[in-house]
Amino acid sequence: MSFNSFGHLFRVTTFGESHGPAIGGVIDGCPPGLRFRLDEVQGALDRRRPGQSRFTTQRREPDEVKILSGTLAEEDGTLISTGAPIALLIENVDQRSKDYSAIAESYRPGHADYAYDVKYGLRDHRGGGRSSARETAVRVAAGAIAAKVLPGVTITGALVQMGEIAIDRANWDSAEIGRNPFFCPDAQAAARMADYLDAIRKSGSSVGAVIEVVAEGVPPGLGAPIYGKLDADLAGALMSINAVKGVEIGEGFASAALTGEDNADEMRMGNDGRPVFLANHAGGVLGGISTGQPVVARFAVKPTSSILTPRRTVTRHGEDAEIVTKGRHDPCVGIRAVPVGEAMVACVLADHFLRQRGQVGTPPAWPFPR
Amino acid sequence: MSFNSFGHLFRVTTFGESHGPAIGGVIDGCPPGLRFRLDEVQGALDRRRPGQSRFTTQRREPDEVKILSGTLAEEDGTLISTGAPIALLIENVDQRSKDYSAIAESYRPGHADYAYDVKYGLRDHRGGGRSSARETAVRVAAGAIAAKVLPGVTITGALVQMGEIAIDRANWDSAEIGRNPFFCPDAQAAARMADYLDAIRKSGSSVGAVIEVVAEGVPPGLGAPIYGKLDADLAGALMSINAVKGVEIGEGFASAALTGEDNADEMRMGNDGRPVFLANHAGGVLGGISTGQPVVARFAVKPTSSILTPRRTVTRHGEDAEIVTKGRHDPCVGIRAVPVGEAMVACVLADHFLRQRGQVGTPPAWPFPR
Amino acid sequence: MSFNSFGHLFRVTTFGESHGPAIGGVIDGCPPGLRFRLDEVQGALDRRRPGQSRFTTQRREPDEVKILSGTLAEEDGTLISTGAPIALLIENVDQRSKDYSAIAESYRPGHADYAYDVKYGLRDHRGGGRSSARETAVRVAAGAIAAKVLPGVTITGALVQMGEIAIDRANWDSAEIGRNPFFCPDAQAAARMADYLDAIRKSGSSVGAVIEVVAEGVPPGLGAPIYGKLDADLAGALMSINAVKGVEIGEGFASAALTGEDNADEMRMGNDGRPVFLANHAGGVLGGISTGQPVVARFAVKPTSSILTPRRTVTRHGEDAEIVTKGRHDPCVGIRAVPVGEAMVACVLADHFLRQRGQVGTPPAWPFPR
Amino acid sequence: MSFNSFGHLFRVTTFGESHGPAIGGVIDGCPPGLRFRLDEVQGALDRRRPGQSRFTTQRREPDEVKILSGTLAEEDGTLISTGAPIALLIENVDQRSKDYSAIAESYRPGHADYAYDVKYGLRDHRGGGRSSARETAVRVAAGAIAAKVLPGVTITGALVQMGEIAIDRANWDSAEIGRNPFFCPDAQAAARMADYLDAIRKSGSSVGAVIEVVAEGVPPGLGAPIYGKLDADLAGALMSINAVKGVEIGEGFASAALTGEDNADEMRMGNDGRPVFLANHAGGVLGGISTGQPVVARFAVKPTSSILTPRRTVTRHGEDAEIVTKGRHDPCVGIRAVPVGEAMVACVLADHFLRQRGQVGTPPAWPFPR
Repeated sequence: MSFNSFGHLFRVTTFGESHGPAIGGVIDGCPPGLRFRLDEVQGALDRRRPGQSRFTTQRREPDEVKILSGTLAEEDGTLISTGAPIALLIENVDQRSKDYSAIAESYRPGHADYAYDVKYGLRDHRGGGRSSARETAVRVAAGAIAAKVLPGVTITGALVQMGEIAIDRANWDSAEIGRNPFFCPDAQAAARMADYLDAIRKSGSSVGAVIEVVAEGVPPGLGAPIYGKLDADLAGALMSINAVKGVEIGEGFASAALTGEDNADEMRMGNDGRPVFLANHAGGVLGGISTGQPVVARFAVKPTSSILTPRRTVTRHGEDAEIVTKGRHDPCVGIRAVPVGEAMVACVLADHFLRQRGQVGTPPAWPFPR
Repeated sequence: MSFNSFGHLFRVTTFGESHGPAIGGVIDGCPPGLRFRLDEVQGALDRRRPGQSRFTTQRREPDEVKILSGTLAEEDGTLISTGAPIALLIENVDQRSKDYSAIAESYRPGHADYAYDVKYGLRDHRGGGRSSARETAVRVAAGAIAAKVLPGVTITGALVQMGEIAIDRANWDSAEIGRNPFFCPDAQAAARMADYLDAIRKSGSSVGAVIEVVAEGVPPGLGAPIYGKLDADLAGALMSINAVKGVEIGEGFASAALTGEDNADEMRMGNDGRPVFLANHAGGVLGGISTGQPVVARFAVKPTSSILTPRRTVTRHGEDAEIVTKGRHDPCVGIRAVPVGEAMVACVLADHFLRQRGQVGTPPAWPFPR
Repeated sequence: MSFNSFGHLFRVTTFGESHGPAIGGVIDGCPPGLRFRLDEVQGALDRRRPGQSRFTTQRREPDEVKILSGTLAEEDGTLISTGAPIALLIENVDQRSKDYSAIAESYRPGHADYAYDVKYGLRDHRGGGRSSARETAVRVAAGAIAAKVLPGVTITGALVQMGEIAIDRANWDSAEIGRNPFFCPDAQAAARMADYLDAIRKSGSSVGAVIEVVAEGVPPGLGAPIYGKLDADLAGALMSINAVKGVEIGEGFASAALTGEDNADEMRMGNDGRPVFLANHAGGVLGGISTGQPVVARFAVKPTSSILTPRRTVTRHGEDAEIVTKGRHDPCVGIRAVPVGEAMVACVLADHFLRQRGQVGTPPAWPFPR
Repeated sequence: MSFNSFGHLFRVTTFGESHGPAIGGVIDGCPPGLRFRLDEVQGALDRRRPGQSRFTTQRREPDEVKILSGTLAEEDGTLISTGAPIALLIENVDQRSKDYSAIAESYRPGHADYAYDVKYGLRDHRGGGRSSARETAVRVAAGAIAAKVLPGVTITGALVQMGEIAIDRANWDSAEIGRNPFFCPDAQAAARMADYLDAIRKSGSSVGAVIEVVAEGVPPGLGAPIYGKLDADLAGALMSINAVKGVEIGEGFASAALTGEDNADEMRMGNDGRPVFLANHAGGVLGGISTGQPVVARFAVKPTSSILTPRRTVTRHGEDAEIVTKGRHDPCVGIRAVPVGEAMVACVLADHFLRQRGQVGTPPAWPFPR
């Protein structure tokens, strides 16, 4: 029971507002003996950091992460987790609170403002307070540590749709993801996205996106059949990212139109004594449990609700009003959601890896003898 | 931390296998003083019950629910919750275990069989054991009680797509949902679905579906901004239903192609002193918190993986094989997922209703004075 | 967050009232592949069962346990856990509800009656409803299965004080525990207890007791330094048993009068390469973590509050009254708390065993090389 | 499931080591709209702060607390909780790590050193790392905020025994608690304690203590009948404080020697329409639920295990050794445990206050009409 924690055995608790002194979090349950470097965590944060291209918010946050506890440092700076909680702290530097004065009284349509006021009876309106996507920086840092729990697992996120522009999967080149400011695996689509988003940005508008995250090397057996389903936990995790409105695993909504024959991922024995799946409609999860195939998840991010076009709204005093949201906002918040999606997948997998080790231990080796 | 529990303050734990003596569950945290009748719970179960039309499995389970604890009975049979855990028991009657002997050795593609064996090192293969959709009967019973926690809330599920047949939303008639065996709100689509599914069923195939659940009358303020998001919990809950591969809230994946202008749900003050939203792209949830608009969720169900067409697979001993799944199965398991989806939404809302009451209590009345 | 569950990875949820149709529970998180026989569980229940001597309540409950799920049966009846939840059911047979009619209106001093009414606004007064010690039967059954999670661990409870009669530790003979109806390890004290309790019983009075539970063979490393302390979880678990008012670990309250020198459990290396502790003031737990020494816990049980002597009280309508509690009650409820205490210790240890395996895995072998 | 969190709806997570850069914590679930001042939190910390008399460790920590999130500040400095997580940070200032170099290799008897090494396979030995009592500063800060959740509740801790010196309850004067460095309510006993502890301190030894915490004004109805028992949660909470070896509620272990007649807390109706209890053997809790009487808890603290007298031990490499613990330690750590005990009681009560409000809401007013 918690409002700001995520996970069970690998458990992340975050705190902090967009315009307070700092954001941060506590990772509870990180196994002892993991080795990592602070610059690995910082590197993950840098991928999500705002202000790196004209396509993201011009807020300039260095997002420098400090680790306050839970590690021992070797002479070369390598950190070793001790099993104690790892506290992460990121100081806020570039808060321009006056930018937000206009929205103190009126609710931004599509934003959490009204819901907050009705729920809590008060609200820190600066920068969206707790509902700001700034909190996701902590998720990214936690994800970098979660990845250390998962030996042999590679997690890659990619933007597969921006507004009306979808990638052509025939063009997929993983190396391309790091070459454009959109995490887009299709170079041609990325070029079109640049023009498209320039126009969106200049008009003060915004647009949505679809992100796909693939985890390769996930061992079979993670998850549980009923309420600890791996895919259910992934769905909850990805839907908890700001502005996400949909989540798919594997074939997703397209599976509704398939027949059982088409959707069956047939199997054959491989040369290495392991089964080979002949397709992956399931997205690596069957009955809530990983199969050893790549885990494939997609999520849809709605357009940023902070736009320059005037919208009709009401004030917190119950009066009709119009609102224009100035501030500094991402024209496509889905771009920076790519590393966040990767981090959430890493955290879910790390949690299930530890849960599996705890509950089941080491089951008999498959295949079973006759 | 739990593998078979769902929810926090309204917490449901289920048990039982498809072919064991019984399935059941425990509702922990049901507030005292709720009044309901056993036949209300039974009525909800009857909607999900197999064998009611030629379009669902011919397994004949009466699904008669017993309440073993947590209630006092008045003379007229009305039950009153006491605040103690409510235990539900449904005995299994029509298990024909020998139907399943063929699948003891070979894994059904698209089914949880292989993942189970690798995870646990053993498996109750009869009827799918714990991964059988039979467990969802308990969810439906729990949902009927969850609905009692939510005064003034109406939850309605409907099948909006079966295989390649989608409804025409212009034809939506809620009264129609109860008149056809598909929970379909479009009478014309329902007629086409009947023919379509007859063909699927006769060929031993199966097909997927999309279900939409709408909750009206949900008070604003349910949910939390970060990890207790109402929509994230709904996504996890719906994805935990057997065979679900995708979840959407409000505009869902379509929001990726929208601009911020299009996606903004503008507001005006209504005559009753409450705000009126001029659209509901958000599906009733902003920033993880309910807004008072109808909560709209959709989920995609893949085709049943148990089909009569031979599929390539492997055995638990690591040999190539072919498999045909006989047994008695639903040609479109999405149909019976409709009441299950309603139940999961009811459980999530009940949980958040109690959480909101606990954490926040009664906030100041909106709108706030100047 | 739960009101009727206990434990995390090995998680027990119970339900049922003293005078309802049945009591029972669900064990969630039992690892797969554990082998046990139903008569082992039944045997544990038989030790706690009422009506076995004149010193316990004359209610005649067979306490026959059924397992409804979570196991496969071999041909010889051996059960194998599958990793699915294990549901336990014990039907109530000998409820004489009319015995309790006198206490429907007046509160028994020292009993939960008043607190229930104020908390819930209603109450099932028959047999104490949910506050009856009858619920502990389910704990005992769960403890028998928990013990299977713990290879090489032996858990023994003993009554070390009844009313004013304390055992002489010089007389401790573990074999004696099973030979008298008090689970008393001192034969001479047991003889005196028999006379003493006969007098208490005949006068309609009741008396308290102290129970000690020792777990031998507990591996070092179970527990955690702060809020998952093994001793804190034991304290909470034992205090959750009906009528318990105090818990001690190791030296307990006597440690307050000791100096650091006296209380130090010095260490030497043993011949087997493991450290030998020269004393066990700590009761097997240091810093919240097991040391490998025997875990020693004690708890105090107050006298049964249901007595024949009239006591002053008030009614649920706010009037002064006198009350005599007839019914059938244990003159020393502490006796039957012995197997319950053992069960709670087993459940806590099983939970921490799985948590340690999950969070830490296999640490480097101690002692560490230079 | 968590190793460093405490509570459910009012949930505290702590982090930090004795000799790292900082300790701190996150309070998740604090209701919105609570008003408090930073100096109230600081004042609570100052009571626990080391180095204030010759009877506590001479480590000089200012223990200045910062609040990083979860509050809005009014112009006069009053903080208002927003419902978002409240992050607390206390920087470590006076770490003299070289003091601890001697204990890097050898285990201190009675300390967590050995258990840590065996559990985690590595250990931050400086200042005890995570097992240091320094973590309790965060508990005290959290307790100060928890107290704000509980209108009308007064929580008072007192030292009632130090080593062989117990107070005379006839001398109890609550005003005296703040007048001596021991939190002792008996002025005469306090004078003797000063001489006694001087001798202990000068000899490099240490001694244990017993602390009593009384909460007055606790509303009836907090807690739950089975595993959410108020007294079980108090027992777990108090046993989680460093060096605690025993916990009692109300009559505690003395109840074992009482008869049912003596132990019954009889009731009469008071003039204000509420029941008056004629005694409080129960310590304010019956059946796990608060009765409205003062909640009375006691806990025993063992002597500090860090002493100057050489003790036999082993090294982490498995060799026999002798050890003397220099560093700066409390001769009676029980003294500073007094405000920690108060804080834990405040946190448990706050958690149950919110849980009661969530699960039960507002039950019908007692007494009930005929």
